[in-house]
Amino acid sequence: MIIGRKPLNLSLYRLALTPSGLGEETPKGFKISNERLEFLGDAVLGSVIAEYLFNKFPYRDEGFLTETRSKLVNRETLNEIGIKIGLKDTLEQVVSSRQFIGNKSLFGDILEAFVGAVYLDRGYKFTQKLILQRILLHMDLDGMISTVTNYKSKIIEWSQKESKVVEYKVLRVNGNQRFKEFVVELHVDGESVAEGKGSTKKKAEQEASKNACETLNISL
Amino acid sequence: MIIGRKPLNLSLYRLALTPSGLGEETPKGFKISNERLEFLGDAVLGSVIAEYLFNKFPYRDEGFLTETRSKLVNRETLNEIGIKIGLKDTLEQVVSSRQFIGNKSLFGDILEAFVGAVYLDRGYKFTQKLILQRILLHMDLDGMISTVTNYKSKIIEWSQKESKVVEYKVLRVNGNQRFKEFVVELHVDGESVAEGKGSTKKKAEQEASKNACETLNISL
Repeated sequence: MIIGRKPLNLSLYRLALTPSGLGEETPKGFKISNERLEFLGDAVLGSVIAEYLFNKFPYRDEGFLTETRSKLVNRETLNEIGIKIGLKDTLEQVVSSRQFIGNKSLFGDILEAFVGAVYLDRGYKFTQKLILQRILLHMDLDGMISTVTNYKSKIIEWSQKESKVVEYKVLRVNGNQRFKEFVVELHVDGESVAEGKGSTKKKAEQEASKNACETLNISL
Repeated sequence: MIIGRKPLNLSLYRLALTPSGLGEETPKGFKISNERLEFLGDAVLGSVIAEYLFNKFPYRDEGFLTETRSKLVNRETLNEIGIKIGLKDTLEQVVSSRQFIGNKSLFGDILEAFVGAVYLDRGYKFTQKLILQRILLHMDLDGMISTVTNYKSKIIEWSQKESKVVEYKVLRVNGNQRFKEFVVELHVDGESVAEGKGSTKKKAEQEASKNACETLNISL
């Protein structure tokens, strides 16, 4: 059993293994499926990962934390992890595999629903441990972080390779002395390419760089 | 004291009361402020509210739960609650009020940071109780729900008032027998006004109605 303990309430886990496409509809049109558990599991997973990143990176700002988390818990990543930890095999024991072709994030959805089921069955602390010990190790944190932080260095790298002159200009500073919002424009060879906003100049430059990476099709 | 108990770690609460605009910058450019706590508190709040709605509405689908939650924890609502529970007065004891004019969601941000501080100080269960007992009561759940659900009835109401003929047409059903995606078109007096998609016909109609409310400027 994936959770490493005997489940207290087996029906929750059965429900987690019921994708919406396979759920039965009640006479009143309510579909019994794992979607509600997925909603709950997504929230619990988000909270656990938030605390993990908060503790692991005491000197990084909330922009970094938010972006790293959204990369860790995105649909594709979760789907891969769902398959890795055996949800595909488990599901195949229940239904024919042909029945669930076509839903790209099926196992990610089940993984989230599964987290929701564990939470209802065993509480927050148990679920937290389970996520940290059994799910997080499948997340390529280092790989993700490297793509989170270095938009600006990506731009610098690119400009050197392409012999372009890159310049960051502060367009304006909104707000008062205390609450500032910097608006930064990124110029390539004198031409404005992208804009970015942020509560510090550094953040605004990062955002401008990120936008420029998209505009200029610079691969990350 | 808002949390109703003596805090174990007072510096956390002090940090929660430090908006980014008032935070000091370290020599390395790292700004000490409540933004990281806000990130954590936002996640914990989201998780607690998710479970609350999950239990309170056992027969509502995840679309309803998601939308209701996002209305409950939006910036404006949180900001109002922050003021109601006394964060403004608390902050004014620390700094001059003129210093924090200009940030619209200042007290909502502090509220989230405060939830993060309580979580680190006292754990999940304590924070959950605090949110349910002291924060949730300020949220107008019924009022919000009435705006969440009734897009379709809004359209029907409107059509009767304006003497229009409204019709929902299933344009196509994507996917296979098991995983369906309905695409529904909403016609007003024979003309297509909006489209909606969903895993059931009902959901697709709701989404089409929502889009039509926007297109037709129907107030909710």
